[in-house]
Formats: sequence, structure tokens, C-alpha cells
Amino acid sequence: MSFTSQETTSTTSGKLHPFDPVRPEEIRLAVRILEASFPGVPLRYNRIDIHEPIKQDVIPYIEAERLGKPLPPRPARLLYSYFSRVDTGVCIKALMNADTKSLIYAKEFPEGVQPPMDVDEIAGIEEHCMQHPAVLAEIEKLKLPPGMTVCNDPWMYGTDDPNEKRRLFQCFMYIVEVDHPENNHYSLPCKFSPVFDARTKELVRMDYLPGGADHQTVETQPWVPVKAVQYAPELLDEPLRTDLKPYIVQQPQGASFSVDGNSVYWQKWRFRVGFNNREGLVLHNITYDKRNVFYRLNVSEMTVPYGDPRAPYHRKQAFDVGDVGFGLNANQLSLGCDCLGHIKYFDGYRSDSKGNPVLLKNIICMHEQDNGLQYKHTNYRSNAATVKRNRQLVLQMICTVANYEYIFAYIFDQAGNVELEVRATGILSTVPFDNLNGETVPWGTNVGPGVMAPYHQHMFSLRIDPAIDGFNNTVYYEDSVPLPEDENNPYLVGYTTEQTVIRKSSSANTDVNRHRVFKIRNDNVINPITYKPVSYKLMAAPSQMLLLPKHAVGHQRAEFASKPIWVTKYQDNELFAAGEFTNQSKKADGVETWVQRNDDTENEDVVLWHTFGLTHNPRIEDFPVMPMERISVMLRPDGFFTKNPALDVPPSSQAFNKSTLHPEPAPAAACCSGVGGSKAKLYKRVD
Amino acid sequence: MSFTSQETTSTTSGKLHPFDPVRPEEIRLAVRILEASFPGVPLRYNRIDIHEPIKQDVIPYIEAERLGKPLPPRPARLLYSYFSRVDTGVCIKALMNADTKSLIYAKEFPEGVQPPMDVDEIAGIEEHCMQHPAVLAEIEKLKLPPGMTVCNDPWMYGTDDPNEKRRLFQCFMYIVEVDHPENNHYSLPCKFSPVFDARTKELVRMDYLPGGADHQTVETQPWVPVKAVQYAPELLDEPLRTDLKPYIVQQPQGASFSVDGNSVYWQKWRFRVGFNNREGLVLHNITYDKRNVFYRLNVSEMTVPYGDPRAPYHRKQAFDVGDVGFGLNANQLSLGCDCLGHIKYFDGYRSDSKGNPVLLKNIICMHEQDNGLQYKHTNYRSNAATVKRNRQLVLQMICTVANYEYIFAYIFDQAGNVELEVRATGILSTVPFDNLNGETVPWGTNVGPGVMAPYHQHMFSLRIDPAIDGFNNTVYYEDSVPLPEDENNPYLVGYTTEQTVIRKSSSANTDVNRHRVFKIRNDNVINPITYKPVSYKLMAAPSQMLLLPKHAVGHQRAEFASKPIWVTKYQDNELFAAGEFTNQSKKADGVETWVQRNDDTENEDVVLWHTFGLTHNPRIEDFPVMPMERISVMLRPDGFFTKNPALDVPPSSQAFNKSTLHPEPAPAAACCSGVGGSKAKLYKRVD
Repeated sequence: MSFTSQETTSTTSGKLHPFDPVRPEEIRLAVRILEASFPGVPLRYNRIDIHEPIKQDVIPYIEAERLGKPLPPRPARLLYSYFSRVDTGVCIKALMNADTKSLIYAKEFPEGVQPPMDVDEIAGIEEHCMQHPAVLAEIEKLKLPPGMTVCNDPWMYGTDDPNEKRRLFQCFMYIVEVDHPENNHYSLPCKFSPVFDARTKELVRMDYLPGGADHQTVETQPWVPVKAVQYAPELLDEPLRTDLKPYIVQQPQGASFSVDGNSVYWQKWRFRVGFNNREGLVLHNITYDKRNVFYRLNVSEMTVPYGDPRAPYHRKQAFDVGDVGFGLNANQLSLGCDCLGHIKYFDGYRSDSKGNPVLLKNIICMHEQDNGLQYKHTNYRSNAATVKRNRQLVLQMICTVANYEYIFAYIFDQAGNVELEVRATGILSTVPFDNLNGETVPWGTNVGPGVMAPYHQHMFSLRIDPAIDGFNNTVYYEDSVPLPEDENNPYLVGYTTEQTVIRKSSSANTDVNRHRVFKIRNDNVINPITYKPVSYKLMAAPSQMLLLPKHAVGHQRAEFASKPIWVTKYQDNELFAAGEFTNQSKKADGVETWVQRNDDTENEDVVLWHTFGLTHNPRIEDFPVMPMERISVMLRPDGFFTKNPALDVPPSSQAFNKSTLHPEPAPAAACCSGVGGSKAKLYKRVD
Repeated sequence: MSFTSQETTSTTSGKLHPFDPVRPEEIRLAVRILEASFPGVPLRYNRIDIHEPIKQDVIPYIEAERLGKPLPPRPARLLYSYFSRVDTGVCIKALMNADTKSLIYAKEFPEGVQPPMDVDEIAGIEEHCMQHPAVLAEIEKLKLPPGMTVCNDPWMYGTDDPNEKRRLFQCFMYIVEVDHPENNHYSLPCKFSPVFDARTKELVRMDYLPGGADHQTVETQPWVPVKAVQYAPELLDEPLRTDLKPYIVQQPQGASFSVDGNSVYWQKWRFRVGFNNREGLVLHNITYDKRNVFYRLNVSEMTVPYGDPRAPYHRKQAFDVGDVGFGLNANQLSLGCDCLGHIKYFDGYRSDSKGNPVLLKNIICMHEQDNGLQYKHTNYRSNAATVKRNRQLVLQMICTVANYEYIFAYIFDQAGNVELEVRATGILSTVPFDNLNGETVPWGTNVGPGVMAPYHQHMFSLRIDPAIDGFNNTVYYEDSVPLPEDENNPYLVGYTTEQTVIRKSSSANTDVNRHRVFKIRNDNVINPITYKPVSYKLMAAPSQMLLLPKHAVGHQRAEFASKPIWVTKYQDNELFAAGEFTNQSKKADGVETWVQRNDDTENEDVVLWHTFGLTHNPRIEDFPVMPMERISVMLRPDGFFTKNPALDVPPSSQAFNKSTLHPEPAPAAACCSGVGGSKAKLYKRVD
């Protein structure tokens, strides 16, 4: 089926890059394709977005771009949609070609497989919950003081029944202390929690939440008034600090980066800023000084299993990429609040459930930052020093997933390093707990009166599709080990490295005690000085893996989080570590499945997946909003260059940096020979 | 013995705080005390510096300061000196009371125990080496091209002979390619290396360095010319980058900190900036909002064992605190080069070998920095967001130890966190290696023609003397473990924490797989909401420990680096993890000895020592100057407060931050309905 002839509205697809985010006219085009494919059938759109282009089609195109050669025909822009027939409720996935304006396929979802939650759906459930008579009856029993109300957060439902086929949402209920746009309802959780069928709107069950450390629940009781712990400046009891002075970043000559659409050039780096509803920020085609480095970098999944053993909390296991989408949850950033300095913003689009494009304004910001010193050496004889500051380029996205926030930043520097920094912040997912008389639980922390924050883990999967001087690469790891105690090591000081090549798709462990480092090399390109293949190393973040035992459903849904390293052979459509469909999943269909192909992964088109995370046993200081906890992973050249690639960065100087000296108090009457105030030279002797 | 009556020059000791660094008049006073104690004996001063005051004397004084009560008598300011009798060569340690101007003791060093190297001594050896006929004869054999010369770096001598009693230096020799104050001689190492007796100036031995992977050496040969890898901007072949735009930090209203002498107040933090020749920057008496947090923080030792098994490299094991001193090596910082923004500098003093005070200008800098977002929450219903930026206060010291640089920064934030960040940079310690025909070694990396950088480790010891709401504290660790699979955990999701209290002085291991966290608590102060003792946690940096086997001399000299965690009961004079005297030491006399007392450490005055480090297998990118490798350890409140302590930080706003928007290119003729250029509101639907 093709729309070429019928299409009247022009589209810019022809001018777009294969990696560009979806355009609003493409969302409209997709709707027209699907309406024509299902004539007369009312459709509800769960998602319409750009689909990753076919890699083998893209490579000749981006290689021509990199080398400045004539471009071959541009690979097709692909769109996909998850949608449902309103008449039957059947869910369908469609793939479309935006250039030929045609449907490639439309497949029904297998029974029990659920598409992700969508924005309109969540809002609908939230609203429906607040109007449901059974919920209103529970609220009535709270006998709240005048002016106080109740609200709810609909949650994804971590299925515990393998036969469950309904599309379920669990609504967690909270008391609203004050009618304020930043009231912290998470401080006052209720003890009832309705479960709804999203399709039929039926109340499936009213769950009651335990009040003590055991599983016991009771009927809803009148609320015992306690004060909420608020975070909004206007709602605080204490005044704000008044002794913080402004700190202003100025770039009077503008930024050092240049931008052409979604293509960015900065300090020898060139890459494309991608965005999609599921992953949010994605980086494509990262090159340095015209050399290939990475084909694609993205956070492919994130799961948060909770450690509270009591029903119904065992179902709390968010997959914030697969269940919802970091792109959909990305904050619309504002100048001066989220970003400091000279800022460039990127926008995105999503579709609403009717197929209308919705602008997501400023969901990615880009700016430079100063990160202290990158390198320094002082010649102690001459006291002459070379100092280079560490200027960085930051691409940042902030995602709000109901209560919680994640701040993702890809950070480039001038020495060939790319870092992914994740900051965890926002509000803890809380539960009601009768803690007014000294009660505690061994799996959570009291964070306020009547409220407890259970232990949980945040497990991220960074997907690294490398292109170290080419698209065929090899992943290996290197351990540092003592040399044998023999005649070649007579003084016992010798140590060396042991290399283990990952020759077949598989998983591997980190090992701090052996200083294990994972590297990606190109066996076809030898460094002329080290005589070894060019490579990048992964500065991994060794982390505790899933605490869930193997036979727990939550483990099987998130097997990617049971191992820190996975290596697969590239295949199109293998982008997400826990598989494409995580919402109410019973089992993953991701890296743990793909490695079982036992593919050759030496000098092949490989993908390296790194699972890292936080075991987050909340501190009370994490409430009501959590000071960020930072975790970082870096990709660092290791034999990729022939010397420090930042040597040509201009030196740090006062003429360039214009720092200011803190004023000294007027000197008191000199009690000694005025040493402090003298213009002493370096190492000047004081007589 | 007292100088009270004879003293004519006034001293400021009376006005000084017990924690203030040594003053020049105190150095002069010490000399007078010692000259009077050894009348007629010519003395050579290795070191004259402030000595740590007696803790039990200090506590009442600083507690009165903290609580704003009348001050008790100020504890004595203590001075110490290492010096030698020029007539006999005997080394002596003296302790003096600067207030009473009297000698407390003067003790001869035990035979074979060496004081650290000193600045004048190193310069003397370096000069002596260059004039020695045997060295000149070797240089002659190199047949260097006209204009090229040779220089040397004297190194501490890691004794391999238990009976060695001389004071030895090993000089590593390098070819100087150009007469330039920043010539990189480390790129052209020579293959001969004389060893001198520092006292007699005698040439003990001419060592020859191997040219290949085995231990074989040959007589000095004419030099085969190769090009040095230079780092100084003026000596580079390639031009500097021209596309880096200025990035200026302004604080138009000044800094948020206030300084009174060495006392600093910033955002509820108060502490004293200490400095001494050995450790450099030390922090004393750290309080937050008038609550005690830490008594003292310092980097107590750092050792660098090299992994090259060939003689004489087996003796390369630097102890940069004990052998030399980070304070003596601290760079004299300059505005706009080492620090960006609004900067306060602190000075220090050292003594020269004649007992003259020498000003060490600007060896510590202090400034604020912006570290991105500290926390954020967006209420997804109202889109109202609270954003707080992470303003930090940084105290920085940069130490040059011959070829190498360390950048130490203590970083305070507004949420009660204190971070120690270490950046390793500078020039690799290199060795000659005949690598022009593809040769490699399994314990090092070729970094240029004829030059190789051996693998090595950098092992730091952070000494934490805690005072969590008081001076008696308890260290324990907490592991995250699954709950048993029983009726209380029917869904298998539950996990909890296991606490292990360190009840006796001992060592412990980190454990990433159990998410082991070390905490310091005060059992006498219970948090009113968590119902648990107030505590701080150590965000440790789990690292590979010493690769040296237990029976290697280098292991026995640095046993602190064989375990990541040590807990001791406080005793005065136990400040340095490898003991007071590391130079040519045969065995440590530090934490490994002190823990053997088997002291009670529960609810006692305890000290927590954290060993962390880098196994540094050089990258070629680390040459000729190394892009910094960062390692960080954080102390983070955990149940110390009753909520996020940064709640009262003013919110981030454009009025305060004055960011600028990157200019967008003029829009091209609209090809679609102008969505991109429209002033779309948040989530505005595009029709």
C-alpha cells in the first residue's frame, strides 16, 4: 500500500536525516497510513514514533558524510506505531516507510503482551480512579479534615499471575495536605489501593496496604493527622538561606559548539542528537577528528525492583524505558533553572492517543561546562607549568517518572572521553507505615511520621554500539595480575595484564579485585607506537546486581540486570536490554535471549551492554526530595591515539579565564617582617 | 630549657589557633631552641613544622568555640624538627613547645631509620650528579648532537637490602632535547643511573638499565636519535585549537564564604584549613550548623609501587607523603590558571636546610563551583518544579612529585556531603626501551620512540577522624542481602541489610556484590524519626589492593594498601598509614601495627582509614602529560538529619543564574505549518 499518489500535505521527510527524531508531519502521515489500512475502524494510538533505521543501509550514507564524499541515496525513514482497535481492543504494531508513505507491516500483539502505558491513558486512569464509587467510599472513611483531599498515582502493574491477560494499573492513593501545585502527597500515603482494568475501566480489586511490619491489613480507618514533609520553598516552615551569592557563567563570544539541525560539532567531536519517545536522548554516529568511535549510545532500559516483601508491593517493579519511556517523561527545560550558562535546546514530538502530534519543547539541553583541570605539569626546576582546563560539552535530559527524577548527561571532553552521568533525584516511592511509636522495618527507612521508604534498586543498561575506527570490533577484558615468582621476577614486584577475548556472544562479570577493565578494539587497525589494536576502554561502574533470586518473576523480567556485561552480535531491532515489551511482562526477551545464539563476536559488528546501578536503601536525607546520587560510566580512548589528544587545547590563562581574587582584609599592624603582604616570588626565602 | 627570658623577637604564637599552620617566626624560634640545645654544633635542618596538638587538650577548646562559650586556656602550639648534626651525621627528632619556647625532647633516630628527603638535599644531589666524573663519562659515550644535554631526577631509594644503612638516592638520567623551561626530558630516558650516598656524596654504584624485555644491560652506547614527545604549547608541531570560546565565571556579589585567618564559614559548614609540609592540606574541626561532624580529614599516605620486574626498577616505590611531603610539593597556584572564578588562596611555610623560613605562596585555593543539579522534582500534574543547583565549595591543592602531579580537592556541598576528589595527572615515570622494531613488554606501554611507561599502582590512604555529633563513634558496615525465602517473603522480592559492627581495631574488605557500605554512627544520639543512631556513610572507592605479594618488601613497607578499610582507636601521633618514616623503610609501622592492639572500637574515639587507588596501566594517551584520571570518595550523612538538609537552598532561577540562550538560525521558509518556530506552550497540541 502506498500513499504517494493521494498524499497532498508536503512532508520534510526527504530533507531529514535517517537519525533525526520524528517530525509532526510524519506523525500525521503515519495516522493517514494506518487509517487507510484499517478503513472505518476507530483506532487509538499508544505511540507513533521514528523507528531505528536499518544499520546496513545507514553505514554507506554516514560513511560518505564522514569522508565528505557524494552521498548515496538516503536510507528510508521508518516510523512505527503501537495502536489498538477501539472496537475489539486488539493491539497492533505497525511499521511504515515515511519516504514511500507505505505500510511495511501491521501485526497483532500476541495475547498477554502489552504495549507501554501512554500519557493519555495514565491521565484517564487517574481521573477514573478519583471518580469511582468504591474509591470515594474509602476516602470517606478517612474522615479527612476540611480542605484536605486525596489524589492517586497510577502505577504499572508487575504481574504476579502468569495467566493474567488484562491491562492493569494499580493506583496508589495519597492525602493532599494543601491545595498547592507542589504539595508533597508522597508524605501522606493511604492504606488502600484500587486496581483497574485500563480497557474496561473495571475495578478489579481494592488492595489494602499493611500498616505494620507484617502482611496484615485492616479496613480503612479515620486518618490520624500528622504533618506532611513538604519540599516546595513556599511550604517550608524554615526560611531559605540568604547567604548564597550568585554564580554566573558567561560566554561573551558564544559557545564553542556549532549546530546544524540535530548535528553537533564541538572540539573535533561530531555526532547527531537523537530523540525518541522510549529512550529519550540517543547519540548517533559519534566521530572524533573524522574517525569513527561509536555508532550509537543509549540507556536501553532501567528497572526498579522494590525490596518490600509485603503484598501488593511485590508488584512494584518499574521499567522506566520499556513501560513508559524516558522520552515521554523528559522534562521541558527552562533557561536558568535546569541549565547554567549558554544553552542550546532540542525539541521532540510525541503523538496523543488520537494521533495528533504534541510538541515536547526543550527536552534536551546542551551546554559547555568547566570541569576543573584536565591536566597539569610543573617543571620543578624552572617552575614553568602547562595547565589545561577540562572544558566539557554536556547533553542533558531530565525525566520525571511520577515521584522520581533521573538526570542523564552525556559528557564529551577534549581528550576523547565520553561519559554517561546519571543522577538519581526526585521523591522516594513511599508507603504508609505506623511508625509513631518507634516502629521500624528491616527493609526500609522511616522518612516522616506515618511514612516509610522501602529499599529498592535502580538498574540501568547502557547500550554501546561501538565503531572504533570501523564497525567490526572485538570486546575483551584485561585483568591486572602479579607475574609468576620466577627468575624473571626476582624481586616479586612484577605485575602484568591478562586478556580474555569475548569470542562468542555471552555475559561477563566485573572484578574490582583484579582491576578488570573491559575494552573494545579494532583488530584491523594497529597503533603505530603501542603496536596494539586501537581501542577504547569502558570505565564501568561495578555495582551490586539484582538482589532478586533467579526464580523470582522480577528477576526473569529483568535478566539483563543479573550481569554487568553482555556482548551480542548486532542485529536490527535489538535495542532494549529487557526486550521490546516490558509492561506486565512475565519474562524478558532481551540480551539474555540474544546471547544464546552463541554468535561469533570477535572482529564482528558487536554491541556491548553494561548494567550498572544503585542499591538504594533510602536515607532520611533523601526525603522529601533526594539530593542527587551520582553514578558515572566513561568511555576512554586506550591506544586509540598516539599521544594525549588534548595537547592542542589552548593553555589556561588569566587573560582567557578572567578569574577574580577574593579580597583580603586590610593587614593588621605587622607583627613580623610583613611576609604575608610581600610580593614574594616562588620559593622566595624569607629573611 | 626555656627561651622566655632571652626571646626578643615577638611571636604571634599567642594569637594563633592550635590548628594554624606554622608561622615563619615559629620556624625561627625552633632554630633558636635547637641551637641553644646543641651549642656550638652545626645543624642541618631537614624539616621544621607545626606538630599536631594533643587531641584531649584541644577538644575542650574547640567545643567552647563551637558552643560560643568562654575559651579555656589555649592548648600549646607544638613544633617539631628533623635535623642532623653536621659533625657526626646523626639524625635527631625534636619536639618543642612554641608557647613556653622550650624543648620537650630531642631523640636520635634509630640506626637505619631515615628522615624524609628535603628540598635542598634533592637539589644538591641533582647538582652533584651532573658534576660527577663517572656521570660525565657516561654522558660522553652518548655522543649527543650539539645543543643537546642531559639532566637527572633524583629518586627515593626503595631499599632491597635489609642491612642498608646509608642514605641513598638513585638518579634517573634523561636527554634534554631543547633548552626550554618545559622541555619533556621524560621522553628520552638514558640507560645509566648512578646511585649516590646523600651524606658522603659518594657514588655508590652506576646502575645500567635494560634495553629489552629481559634483565640484560649493556655498556652505554651512542644515542640513536629519536624525536621527543613534547607537551609545551610552544614545542608542539601542531597548532593549538582556535575554536574554544572563553568561559567566564562571575560572582558579582562576591563569594558566599567568609574567612577569618584559616577559619572558613560557608553554607552552615565551618572548618579550619590546615597545612603542613608532610600532608599539605588538612581539614580540622568540621562542623555543620554547629554540629560536630569530623575532627580531622587528611590524605595520610600514598604509595606508588611499579610493576616492572627488572632491576633497578624494583626499588621504585614512592611514598609521596612520607618520603617527600605533599605540602613541600604543593604548587604555588596562580589566578586564572589553576582556578576559575572567585578565588581565595592560603599560604604556607617551610624551612630550608639552614633553618630559614621559606614562604609557600598560594599553595591552597578555595572557590565555589556549580556542579549541576543537586535535586529536582516536577509535579507531573501541575508541571510545577522545584530545582536546586548543587553549589559546592572546593579546597584544592596540586602537588608535583618530580614527573607526576596529584590534584586533591575537598568538596563541600549544601546537603551535608564532603567529597575528596583526587585527580592523577602529570608525566608518567618512563624508562628507556628499544621499541623501534615492534617490541613490547607485558608490564608496560610504549608511549614514544625508545620510551616505555611501566604499569604501576597509586594507593591512597584517606584518614577520617570522625566526630559524628561527638567524639565517641562506632564504625560498622552494612550489606544488602535477600530476605530468606519463607512465609514473610512469599514473593521472593524482599531484601534487607545486615550490619556488622567493628568492635575491635581491625581491617575489613569492601564488597561490591553485597553493596557493602561503611558507616560511622554515634550510638549515643538517636535520630527521632528513623529511631536509629545518627550516622555518616563512607561512599568508598572499591579498588584493587596492592598487587605485591605479602612477602615482597614493597608490600611490607605499605601494608596499609593491602586492605581498603582499617579501624583504629585514636592515639596521638598515629596520623600516617605507613608510619612516620617511610624513606628507605624496610617495614611499615602504621595501621597494620596499630590494629594489633586489639583495642575496643565501639562507641570510642575511633579513626577510619580508607585505602583506595588506581591500578595504572598507562595508556599512550597518558603521554606526554596525562589527561586526569579521577577518583572520588564521599562522606554522606545517613540519618544525621531529619530530612534533606538542602531544602532551604534558594531555588534555581533565571533571575539568579542569568543564563543565555544559544541563538537559533533564522528559520528557513516554512515547509510545514511552522511548528518549529511557534511559541508552543508546554505539551501544547499541534494542530
